[in-house]
Amino acid sequence: MNDQLSPESAIARTTAPTVPVTDEEIFTGHEGGKLSVAATRPIAQARDLSIAYTPGVAKVSRAIAEDASLAERYTWADRLVVVVSDGTAVLGLGDIGASASLPVMEGKSVLFKTFADLDSIPLVLDTTDVDEIVETLVRLRPSYGAVNLEDISAPRCFEIEDRLKKALDCPVMHDDQHGTAIVVLAALRGANLATGRAIGDQRVVISGAGAAGVACAKILRAAGAGDITVLDSRGIIHSGRENLNPVKEELAAATNSTGLRGGPAEALAGADVFIGLSGSTIEESLLASMAADPIVFALSNPDPEIHPDVARRHAAVVATGRSDFPNQINNVLAFPGVFRGALDAGARAITEKMKLAAADAIAAVAADDLSVDRIVPSPLDPRVAPEVAAAVAKAAAEDGVA
Amino acid sequence: MNDQLSPESAIARTTAPTVPVTDEEIFTGHEGGKLSVAATRPIAQARDLSIAYTPGVAKVSRAIAEDASLAERYTWADRLVVVVSDGTAVLGLGDIGASASLPVMEGKSVLFKTFADLDSIPLVLDTTDVDEIVETLVRLRPSYGAVNLEDISAPRCFEIEDRLKKALDCPVMHDDQHGTAIVVLAALRGANLATGRAIGDQRVVISGAGAAGVACAKILRAAGAGDITVLDSRGIIHSGRENLNPVKEELAAATNSTGLRGGPAEALAGADVFIGLSGSTIEESLLASMAADPIVFALSNPDPEIHPDVARRHAAVVATGRSDFPNQINNVLAFPGVFRGALDAGARAITEKMKLAAADAIAAVAADDLSVDRIVPSPLDPRVAPEVAAAVAKAAAEDGVA
Repeated sequence: MNDQLSPESAIARTTAPTVPVTDEEIFTGHEGGKLSVAATRPIAQARDLSIAYTPGVAKVSRAIAEDASLAERYTWADRLVVVVSDGTAVLGLGDIGASASLPVMEGKSVLFKTFADLDSIPLVLDTTDVDEIVETLVRLRPSYGAVNLEDISAPRCFEIEDRLKKALDCPVMHDDQHGTAIVVLAALRGANLATGRAIGDQRVVISGAGAAGVACAKILRAAGAGDITVLDSRGIIHSGRENLNPVKEELAAATNSTGLRGGPAEALAGADVFIGLSGSTIEESLLASMAADPIVFALSNPDPEIHPDVARRHAAVVATGRSDFPNQINNVLAFPGVFRGALDAGARAITEKMKLAAADAIAAVAADDLSVDRIVPSPLDPRVAPEVAAAVAKAAAEDGVA
Repeated sequence: MNDQLSPESAIARTTAPTVPVTDEEIFTGHEGGKLSVAATRPIAQARDLSIAYTPGVAKVSRAIAEDASLAERYTWADRLVVVVSDGTAVLGLGDIGASASLPVMEGKSVLFKTFADLDSIPLVLDTTDVDEIVETLVRLRPSYGAVNLEDISAPRCFEIEDRLKKALDCPVMHDDQHGTAIVVLAALRGANLATGRAIGDQRVVISGAGAAGVACAKILRAAGAGDITVLDSRGIIHSGRENLNPVKEELAAATNSTGLRGGPAEALAGADVFIGLSGSTIEESLLASMAADPIVFALSNPDPEIHPDVARRHAAVVATGRSDFPNQINNVLAFPGVFRGALDAGARAITEKMKLAAADAIAAVAADDLSVDRIVPSPLDPRVAPEVAAAVAKAAAEDGVA
């Protein structure tokens, strides 16, 4: 990396550019879009044309018609990820529509290529109807090998993912849920290792019961977290609360075993870990009320729930989603390797075990050079995706989905 | 080209490989698929990540949300062609399904890139329902800039194209219809120029009333052909025939002005031009019954309606779809330049005038070095696509669709 902060900076080792990126640089960097399609073999002579197109291609098509399994070998579909959005929950911008979401999806395809050498194409949909989104992807099934759902609003995102997982015999993952959850778990493992803690002893508070919050609660439970309390805009989620939607009902049943009620103050008092995923803010006094030397992940973008310098006064470890502070928790650590591993293994699904394996692989890379300001690898660390891919492929085989 | 036939061959100037292409070469040439996706700008440093992805991309998405017209400038959608098939009429193989059609669609994307530097992706659909195909593409509209329909069976292909043209504000073309029609008209212009004939004086017989036959009849009428007679499997199409589908009813009304009835013998007697698009065969004696020195396009693949050497005994000009005989009539002469020109012009549709302009542009390239064995340019001639694109863009502007 050539863009590290100057050595005199208090927050070196981050990936933030030294000189701020200008709007002109940004717009120039998106001019004409960020993707192109290339032929894997050039058409230079008549012979190439006879092989790639008519008459040669007819033999390949006929072979696939006779043995459908050959599509895997002779088309690009089996190694193609579709990055799918309806533009309803784009970054922190909300429901800006399919067309305006496309630059994000193109960016995602760029990252798939850069970090995992995976081909992917953005498909943005001019509908927000759950049935229509599901049926569109079912109809397109012969075109691709895996589905990365992106920036789809909750609670629709849960139903769309669930239904696609049932309808499709290929890896499907809503990255805002599971990509985030995987990296959060990896970061928590790193923070615990750096400070000598164990997840089973920790009480975790998650602020936010949207896509990321729900998935984080799930993966942390699966990883054996001591107890988890989830906050939404109305306060602590508990099974006595009225008007819970089905997703939150499930959350209420699976979390908050001590039956806490109230708001952030009640949730945070004595808690060991705070994970902010809500876009709201949190008072410094509440961090002071947590257990000694807590772990604070203030992941809202672009503005963390609390400024990391303030959080650091109380917390042993602070992480954000930003590149200009230490411990950047970014999905790019997870999704390229997860899909690469799933596709390499020929997996028909992405299971909980595969996600846990991905988190452990990320944590293992960070373990090489761990500190409280380095609990996760840099998003640009080229070791991460191959390690994640290998771990995910292995877990797929163990789980019997490959 | 390095693959020209040896000079002693009677049929030089073709694009056929000297040594036959082996099955092994073909399958190796399709291994892993023929396409990949590339980033237009590399992600090498943290700065690149901040520009292409978060946080930079949020500014681009917000800009498009505020001004939808900016999607054209800052995404790839506006220069992306989707190559769409349901696999119902693949080459000469028939209804082999979406998955088996994918190698053909990938090949098409390779040709778009090679000849017109256009990005395109194959979308193959696991449905043959007209409503479902149309609505799928309508939902995906923000993802692409133009639609190339391919290998969809007649008469569904007519309805799908018509409805998409109405529903979408972008270029839509069923290549099996119009790509073929454009190249056939270009070839007829070349043949006429090489032999001193005029299209307005000619009686043309088209064998086949599928996608290509119907479109050829239309474009030849628009180009001023003297009279056109169309044959299907039941014989000459005339308005007195019963059980004509709507497409053939329209054909009956627009062709066969002298009211011919009967079969190939009645159609061909005294005709000036034969265009075979049916996959059937035609007797040598029927060619002998045509007017003196006729023009014969035997375009069925891989087996022309009559062997070109036999046809040449009677005809002044013979063309086929094959690369191992002179005058190869191949859609690749048309579609890359047609879509390139339409997208360059920002055209909202592909009009009849744009198709005629494309045919004239192809014919103009051939005119440089015209002979009865060279009525169209080689499919690999790099001059063709840019000339076609320029002519199509100009016609789009003149037609008021750009």
